[in-house]
This record gives sequence, C-alpha cells and structure tokens, in this order.
Amino acid sequence: MAQINENYRKLPAGYLFPEIGRRVAAFQKAHPEARVIRLGIGDVTLPLVPAVVAAMRAAVDELATAQGFRGYGPEQGYEFLREAIAEHDYRARGVEVAPDEIFVSDGSKQDSANLQEIFGAGCRIAVTDPVYPVYVDTNVMAGRTGAVGEDGRYAGVLYLRGDADNGFTPGPPDEAADLVYLCSPNNPTGAVASRANLEAWVAWARARDAVIVFDAAYDAYIRDPSLPRSIYEIPGARECAIEMRSFSKRAGFTGVRCAYTVVPRSLCGTTAAGERVPLHGLWARRQSTKYNSTPYVVQRAAAAVYTPEGRKQTEEQIAFYLENARRVREGLLAAGFCVFGGEHAPYVWVRTPDGLSSWECFDRWLRDAHVVCTPGSGFGAAGEGYVRISAFNSRANVEEALARLAR
Amino acid sequence: MAQINENYRKLPAGYLFPEIGRRVAAFQKAHPEARVIRLGIGDVTLPLVPAVVAAMRAAVDELATAQGFRGYGPEQGYEFLREAIAEHDYRARGVEVAPDEIFVSDGSKQDSANLQEIFGAGCRIAVTDPVYPVYVDTNVMAGRTGAVGEDGRYAGVLYLRGDADNGFTPGPPDEAADLVYLCSPNNPTGAVASRANLEAWVAWARARDAVIVFDAAYDAYIRDPSLPRSIYEIPGARECAIEMRSFSKRAGFTGVRCAYTVVPRSLCGTTAAGERVPLHGLWARRQSTKYNSTPYVVQRAAAAVYTPEGRKQTEEQIAFYLENARRVREGLLAAGFCVFGGEHAPYVWVRTPDGLSSWECFDRWLRDAHVVCTPGSGFGAAGEGYVRISAFNSRANVEEALARLAR
Repeated sequence: MAQINENYRKLPAGYLFPEIGRRVAAFQKAHPEARVIRLGIGDVTLPLVPAVVAAMRAAVDELATAQGFRGYGPEQGYEFLREAIAEHDYRARGVEVAPDEIFVSDGSKQDSANLQEIFGAGCRIAVTDPVYPVYVDTNVMAGRTGAVGEDGRYAGVLYLRGDADNGFTPGPPDEAADLVYLCSPNNPTGAVASRANLEAWVAWARARDAVIVFDAAYDAYIRDPSLPRSIYEIPGARECAIEMRSFSKRAGFTGVRCAYTVVPRSLCGTTAAGERVPLHGLWARRQSTKYNSTPYVVQRAAAAVYTPEGRKQTEEQIAFYLENARRVREGLLAAGFCVFGGEHAPYVWVRTPDGLSSWECFDRWLRDAHVVCTPGSGFGAAGEGYVRISAFNSRANVEEALARLAR
Repeated sequence: MAQINENYRKLPAGYLFPEIGRRVAAFQKAHPEARVIRLGIGDVTLPLVPAVVAAMRAAVDELATAQGFRGYGPEQGYEFLREAIAEHDYRARGVEVAPDEIFVSDGSKQDSANLQEIFGAGCRIAVTDPVYPVYVDTNVMAGRTGAVGEDGRYAGVLYLRGDADNGFTPGPPDEAADLVYLCSPNNPTGAVASRANLEAWVAWARARDAVIVFDAAYDAYIRDPSLPRSIYEIPGARECAIEMRSFSKRAGFTGVRCAYTVVPRSLCGTTAAGERVPLHGLWARRQSTKYNSTPYVVQRAAAAVYTPEGRKQTEEQIAFYLENARRVREGLLAAGFCVFGGEHAPYVWVRTPDGLSSWECFDRWLRDAHVVCTPGSGFGAAGEGYVRISAFNSRANVEEALARLAR
C-alpha cells in the first residue's frame, strides 16, 4: 500500500493565484467588454534586454557546433557566472563571498522551497506575517507544522506580525525558533529591512544558533545606498545566514529562470548530539543529488546581466518599474488611500478602504474599476485588510488603473 | 539550535563520479602525454540538431520583443509541448495519456528525486540492483532507510538483484514494497524490460496497491518494436505507475534540461485510514509550490524534437550512438569479454576480466589503455564485478578505445 504524504492534506485546497485567476475569468466572461488591468501576480512585462538576448543567441549558436557544445554542466553552476556574481553582487559592495559558496539554480522559489530539506524534522520555523506562502507551505509538506487554524495559521509555526507600527519589518522574537525566513525588500509589503533590523536579527540568530534564510530576490530595487542589499553586509551574518538572490525581477527572467543561493562555508547546523556540521556540504549534496544545474544558455544570459551594457539596460528596466511604483504610491496617497512600500520594491501595499476585507476589496476593484490586485490575506493572517499592487505593467495601464481607482 | 537532517550523514562521503574524476585527474597529472578516452559519465557529445537550434533562436527572438515576451509559464508546462508529447509519445503508439497528466520539468533526475516527497515517510521502497543511485539516495535523505551496510546496501530497502540469469531485469518479489523504481532501458546495465516482465510488475503492483516509478529516460534507444517504450502499453498500468521520460539522451539536452513525468488521473495512493487519494493532485501541488516550470526557450526547443525535421535529425543522432554501442559490444565480444546491453541502450555492461573488482578493472583500464569506464559497484552491490561503458563519444574515440582494450 503506497501511503501518501498526509501533510499535503493540511494545505488549503485553493491556492491564491489560481483563485484570483478563477474570479477574473468569471468576471471577464460576464463582462466581455471590460478592459481588465492586471496588477495582481508579480510578473515582469518588459522584454529581455539586448545584452541578455545577444548572450543567449551566442550560447545557442555554441550548442549548435561540435566545438561549442556543452552537456552536463557543473552542478553548482558554471564558474563564469559564479565569479561574476561574487565580483559584482558582493566584492564590489565590500562583502566577501567566495564563488564556491554560490549555488546557481532555476529560481529563488525552488531554493526557498528546498532549503528546509537539509534541516531536521523537528526544527521550529519562524516567518514574518504577511509572508511569501512558499516558506510556510513547504514546511507544512515536510511535516514541521500542525494543522491549519481558522485564521490560516499553522500550529507550531512562529508568526511575527508585520504592521504599520513596525514598518512591516518585525524584529526578532523572545521565543525560540531554529529557522527564520526573512524577505527584504519584502514580498508582499514592499518594506525594506533597515541595517539596525538586520543587525538585531543576526545577533539574535547567533545567540541561539538559529539559521536565517534571507530572501533578497528584489534587492536590485533598493535605491537608498544606506539600506543593506545583502545580509552579509552585517558582521557575523556569515555564521548564521543563507542568502538567496534572483534574476527574475532584476532582469526579467521570470520565464528564463535563474537565481542563486549563498551558503557560507562558516555556517553550521548541529546534530542532535550537539556536533556542529557545515551546511555548505549538506546543500552541495542536496543539489548534486537532486539537481542538474541550470541550462547553459540561461547561465550565459545571467552572466550578461553583469556586463556594462547588461547592467545599464537592466537598471533602466528597474527604474521604469520603480517609476510605476512611485506613481501608484503617490496616486493612491493623493486619492486618500493608506499606502506602504513601493519605494525600494515593485510592490505597493494598500490598506483596504471602508474596512473591507482583502477579498471584498479585490472583488470591488474588479467589479467597479476592472483592476486586479492581490488580496493581502492570501499572504497570511496579518495581510487581512490589505491588498498588494504590482508595478509590473505598462505605464499606460498603471495610469489608467490609477485613474479608475481614484474615481 | 538549527538541527540538520541527519539522514544525509548516512550517505557515503564519496560520490561515484567525483571519485572517477579524481582518479582520472591524478593519472593525467602523472602521465600528461597520455590521451585519455572517457567512456565513463553518460553525457552526450553531438551538438544540438538544427531543428532544435532554430526553435531556440526563434524563442529567444520572441523574448526580445514586447509582443513576444513571456514571463512565468504554466507550472505544468506549456500546452504546446504537453500536446506534442501526448500526440507523438503516446497517441501515435496507441496509448492514451492526456496532456493534463503530463508535467514538464528540467530533468528525470529531478523528477525521480522529488517524486518520493508525495509519499508517506513509512513507505518501503524497492529497487533493482545495480541501480541509478538517485532513487535510493533521495529516499535515504528523506529518512525512509536505515544505515548503510558494508556492501553499500541500506537497511529497510528491498534490493532486487539483476544478473545474467534474469537478463538484469528482475521480476517482482514475494516480499511487500510500496514504491518500486524500474528503469528501462536500464542505466547502468543497458537491459530492456520485456512486455512479460512489465506485465508481471503491473499485476504485482495492482494486487498490492504499490506504485511503480517507471524511468524511461532512454526509451528512444529501443529498436525492437515489440519491446514496450512506455509502461502504459501494459493494460492496468494507469492504475499503478508513474512514468518519466527525458530529452537528455534523446535530443542531446543534458545541458539544455527538459524532461517530463506522467501521473495518470486514475492513479491513487492511500491514507493511513485507507482513503484513496489521487496522486495527480499531490504532484500538481508539489510542482506548483516548489517549481516554476521549465524555461520557455527550452520548452520550445523540446517541442521542436517532435517536428518532422526534429524527429529525423534526433533519430540520426540516436542511430549514431547506437552504432557506437554496437561496435563496443561486438568489439569486446570478439576480444573475449562477457558483455550485456548496448542493443537498445547507449550503455554496454561488461563483466570484468580475471575476476577483478569493478574499481580494479577501472584502474587497470585507465593505466594500461587510458580508457575511462564507470565501475559497476558504484551502482550497487550487484554491480560489483562489472563496468559500464558509455556509447556517447566520437566514432574515432570509440574505435581507438576498443583497439586499446583488445590489446
């Protein structure tokens, strides 16, 4: 009898984005004339930049020749890409990360989902709330939680409420936790952790031998040079933190698929008997056993992001999306909404008007303005009463959506 | 205290292919003049075929335009690819598999590694021996086994010995098992399961509510039309089997990364309470939570394999590798070796001469013939006394290696 993993049954049947899709499709069917503007799912809209396109073309051409053909690549990623990452994302900012501490992958979603595998079944996880659902759901699947409650919270998980009072960047708790997921710039709130906040987290984790999983998938959107883009800008983080970065939102790679994870060689977990074990070796083993590296063509595309043209061109795209975010933010503020984020992130976090629930606001905006947002409650109990607006769209659509919402 | 997953520590420190690499590098350093021919790792050598290259170029060009750009794709894979798979790999052979039962991925290694997640922790696994190490290692990591013994076998796993007597295709056991991994054409032995063998397996699995994970990554190498290429050619398999296929060896995609897994809607696991639960929904949930679909460019490349030109061109590559395999097989037979496989698979399985162990034979061939093979013992206890030779190389290298081994 092949028994199933019954932890899967703890997950609610409806997933956020399919439910949004269902409601939008139903509305569109009932109102075929309505021009619906989608500011829901955080997916980029601008085409790949020329430097990336040229690199992909050249890589395809290589694979077409006997001399240039490449089969299996190094499981951790090609050195040309890991070197470029170490140089531009770290060394250039005064942070030491060695190329062999970098693991190239096909997405931060995958990495944040898979990282929990190298930890013990009994680890207690902590997440901020609202939160990117993958952190919690993958730990539910792994059996690290109890059942889900009425409020969508799982027994056994430590939720750290983010709200207007703490700038949606909660600090470390008094309670114990073993594995903490932090995301800055934050999805969904658009909040950015300050240096002081991250310093507090690093001190807390070191004092407790806890591990921080730091998701910096949106780091390229940070404008203020005093805000940390990497947790390794905080002294001591190499002993307590794993960091993830992505090319998805930085270079329009949501359909190209490339990201990376840093596991410092100095970072250890412990055995039940108290022995300290480097996590680098465990993650290397996980990846070499279950993964086969990212396509060569994709790694060449990612490396092109670090060329002078690539940096200039992707920076222009980020500036474009951030200008969208600024207009959403200021437009909604001017229309009387209570608004957060959108300054160093492509997301604007909006308090629902008139005390509406997140889904009520979603439905009203869809019905009255034909604008699709993402209900904040889909990101956790503390997201109730908020909606997320994504800045990934054309300028004209953003302006049009704002004009409709202001009415 | 972040405790590690201590199951990882059950895995032996040395992994097969890194150890091969280490020995070859040491030999090459001591003998820089030696021209080493590598018939070890099973990696393709021919460039991508023109139909695939054209499709990849066109897809890159699409992503470079505002109109053609694609971000996140459907998590199960694009319909254009799933339709092509259903039509050409199944319907054309009289097998009904619906496009929505197909899950596109970046590799059969990944899928065979990840599939175990949807099953309960207490499931007993069964594998043939010798076996592709990923099936066992990933279950070790998940805690479904005890410690490893002197012979490399893990407590709690049911090993089914493949040998010359059963044609390296063992039939179902009398003992109980819940999850069985079968690979045909087989890596490493090159053996192919007969229809009768698979019929026996399907009957066995159905009688016990067991699930077969059928790895058909090398199906394109089957020449004999009476041999099943899909387990779904066996009546009843839709109620007991998951199937994996890959473009890696079929179209030279080891560095491009595309594969797929079929989970029939009629296939169920059970809860501890005895309720039957469709595995399709569990796998869909696993993939949508932890995966983000395969790059658009790669899916277009895979779809091109099914065009008339793509089929003709990839078929020529397979014929080339199979001719290599035939020459290896016949050359070694003529030289007095005892040889298996290599007729419907790119691997030839060779009994070591003079009663050498697998690694002794590896070392002797490297030292005396400068030929790299893969020690059979790396694939399990029953692989001891054998080595695997891969047909993925140039004709000249294959001929040269044979001439050296015959001496």
